[in-house]
Amino acid sequence: MHPSLPATPDYDAWPVTHQITDVSHDARLVTLHWDDGRISRYHSVWLRENAADDSTVNPATRERILDLSTLSAWPEIDNCHIDASGALVVGIAPEAIELRFHPGWLRYHDYDNTIDDRQPLVPVTTWLGGPEQSPVTLEADGWLDTTPDSREEAEVLTPALEAILGRGLVRLRGLPTEPGTLAHIAERIGPIRSTNFGTLFNVKAKHDPDSNAYTSIALPPHVDLPTREYHPGLQLLHCLENSVSGGQAVMLDGFAVAEALREEDPDAFDTLTRVQWRFANTSRNTDYVWHSPMIVLDDRGQLEEVRIADFLRGPLMTNFDEVDAAYRALMALQQRLRQPRFALRFTYAPGDLVIFDNRRLLHARDAFSGDSGHRWLQGCYLERDEIRSRYRIVQRRRREQLVAAAGDELSAPAHAEP
Amino acid sequence: MHPSLPATPDYDAWPVTHQITDVSHDARLVTLHWDDGRISRYHSVWLRENAADDSTVNPATRERILDLSTLSAWPEIDNCHIDASGALVVGIAPEAIELRFHPGWLRYHDYDNTIDDRQPLVPVTTWLGGPEQSPVTLEADGWLDTTPDSREEAEVLTPALEAILGRGLVRLRGLPTEPGTLAHIAERIGPIRSTNFGTLFNVKAKHDPDSNAYTSIALPPHVDLPTREYHPGLQLLHCLENSVSGGQAVMLDGFAVAEALREEDPDAFDTLTRVQWRFANTSRNTDYVWHSPMIVLDDRGQLEEVRIADFLRGPLMTNFDEVDAAYRALMALQQRLRQPRFALRFTYAPGDLVIFDNRRLLHARDAFSGDSGHRWLQGCYLERDEIRSRYRIVQRRRREQLVAAAGDELSAPAHAEP
Repeated sequence: MHPSLPATPDYDAWPVTHQITDVSHDARLVTLHWDDGRISRYHSVWLRENAADDSTVNPATRERILDLSTLSAWPEIDNCHIDASGALVVGIAPEAIELRFHPGWLRYHDYDNTIDDRQPLVPVTTWLGGPEQSPVTLEADGWLDTTPDSREEAEVLTPALEAILGRGLVRLRGLPTEPGTLAHIAERIGPIRSTNFGTLFNVKAKHDPDSNAYTSIALPPHVDLPTREYHPGLQLLHCLENSVSGGQAVMLDGFAVAEALREEDPDAFDTLTRVQWRFANTSRNTDYVWHSPMIVLDDRGQLEEVRIADFLRGPLMTNFDEVDAAYRALMALQQRLRQPRFALRFTYAPGDLVIFDNRRLLHARDAFSGDSGHRWLQGCYLERDEIRSRYRIVQRRRREQLVAAAGDELSAPAHAEP
Repeated sequence: MHPSLPATPDYDAWPVTHQITDVSHDARLVTLHWDDGRISRYHSVWLRENAADDSTVNPATRERILDLSTLSAWPEIDNCHIDASGALVVGIAPEAIELRFHPGWLRYHDYDNTIDDRQPLVPVTTWLGGPEQSPVTLEADGWLDTTPDSREEAEVLTPALEAILGRGLVRLRGLPTEPGTLAHIAERIGPIRSTNFGTLFNVKAKHDPDSNAYTSIALPPHVDLPTREYHPGLQLLHCLENSVSGGQAVMLDGFAVAEALREEDPDAFDTLTRVQWRFANTSRNTDYVWHSPMIVLDDRGQLEEVRIADFLRGPLMTNFDEVDAAYRALMALQQRLRQPRFALRFTYAPGDLVIFDNRRLLHARDAFSGDSGHRWLQGCYLERDEIRSRYRIVQRRRREQLVAAAGDELSAPAHAEP
């Protein structure tokens, strides 16, 4: 009987899509040859701390318990081979222990051939607006009644999560207009992020507004809560009532605006990636302040977020000699925010719910007449972490099906020999 | 009668500690001379967009409504003077409007003389551990019964907020041991940050643990949730029961550990500020992943956060040629985490509540025997934003008192002239 494949140091499923055909080693490196010609190298110390045995991982939680610095010496490779299950077996000196590694897990974690482990889960596709554009729109069937964490739920969530991750925006249609429905939708993705505006907030004109959002005036394109160190990664808005004249919703892809600025006015782009603007709320009982460029690039130069909201900026407190250039760049950006080429416009119907990346998309609304009817959106925030986690789980469920199918194959009766 | 001082573009209070003695201008700059000799310059465009009049700010919310790029030309200064109230009055061309600026507000927002608007609200003081050390400890009187946002509340909160901002840690004593009390304490600072572990989580040994925290094993020094893009800025732990043998709490100042490493092994320090480790939770239904250095410096080279938790690291997926150096640096760090010089040790008494900066401090606990009694901590998270906002409000209340006192002076009967 074949030995079974070893455990992995996680709860994930790793289909064995390729076999290891050859293995060699020196004291510090194991080199694997795969059946498709790929060659992968793994460091001895990396293998040691990513083992899945009980000296490395707590079997109850699969969290690491090994502290590498307590070993008597650097882990070195004494011997290695591939066993009958296809697993890599490595003898580690000086502990004189033998560790087994799952080939599917090893293949996925092949850092020798991984260009960038931080690439987006779904490719980012920037977009322009215009009259013929509308958001990716899906029926909301299933969001309220599939079993949490089931395969059916994964199927319902997948196209929505991919639209949000890729285009920054999705619209679900046909939801009930019960207040609080939003929380059930949001929790399909992850826990709601509460703020000083509450857990669920109500966007309607108020008598004593603590934000321009709670008036009937037009709102210019903006992200919410740029005054926070980490402004919310996702915003959800659920339309419960809309019978007013005006108040059309407008959304812009902030990454597309930034790319246009980079192309058309590179000095302004560069200035807006550098100048630390002061974002500040003006409120009677809270005082959030954060400093940030308006266009934030990550350490690889890729667009990470935009922080744009004229009405949530405090006085600029930067290097005196940069102030005129900063304002020139700001105006170059402001002009583009008004250009129709970026604006995706739509009207909320009761039962619509939009989910969008609040660190990428800007949203705006036209003024409406408070006397013409009622307009009531219910909103909440999530973090980007939550959608990434949920999407990885959706991908994991797909891998689990592959592993289960392969197991069925293995356990099917062998072909009768002649 | 004197004209009254103009409004400011916020809800804050700005005591007039100095008078403007002289003013001059060219088209793009106003130059002020103050009664203590300070000279401050303000750009025309900066003054234009930070005005507090109704063309610039929505009077209901004090949020900006001006879009600078809609002006017909760059705002230039046509004339300026100091009026009888002590305010700066600026005539702006080409709009031909006159704007008035509050001298207390101008003095505070003097970016011409501000070295760094991003300096910490309270100076950061790193600390070592050792047997004679204990956390800053305050009686919790008042946290449950002062009026929210009152001057009395500000007095209760101030020393605790200053300890957390400055040393990263405070201990409150003498609270009730009712489950849920924690939420009332936390909300004095700001809204709780929910996670997949819930809003309030219970740290006790569980039968089916989804984290090593929910076992009775020792936990090495770590921060919570380094698997999130923004790991929680504050953690609160409230002791409801503690009758076990063992289970002593240990805390380390991660900034002190980082500084020691920088001094003693600069290569390891440098490596840990650069290598992108993979932080990953291992769970059945969530899959959080984030990449980060273990020691994070901001763009000015100052310590911003540490991300250290061996049991929440996934397989390192970085540049192949950096792997051995990364592990050497990791072990240099791990060795220091075990050194008694950093460890502050204490035993939770029922009714104790600690609040600490989870992006700076590492916490750990000794193993305990589950049979020896009960150990129950209730915990929750907040963001750093919340404590900063709360502390700014405390400072604002102090300024309001100064302004009110000055107002009393002004409204007091004038000295009788001879």
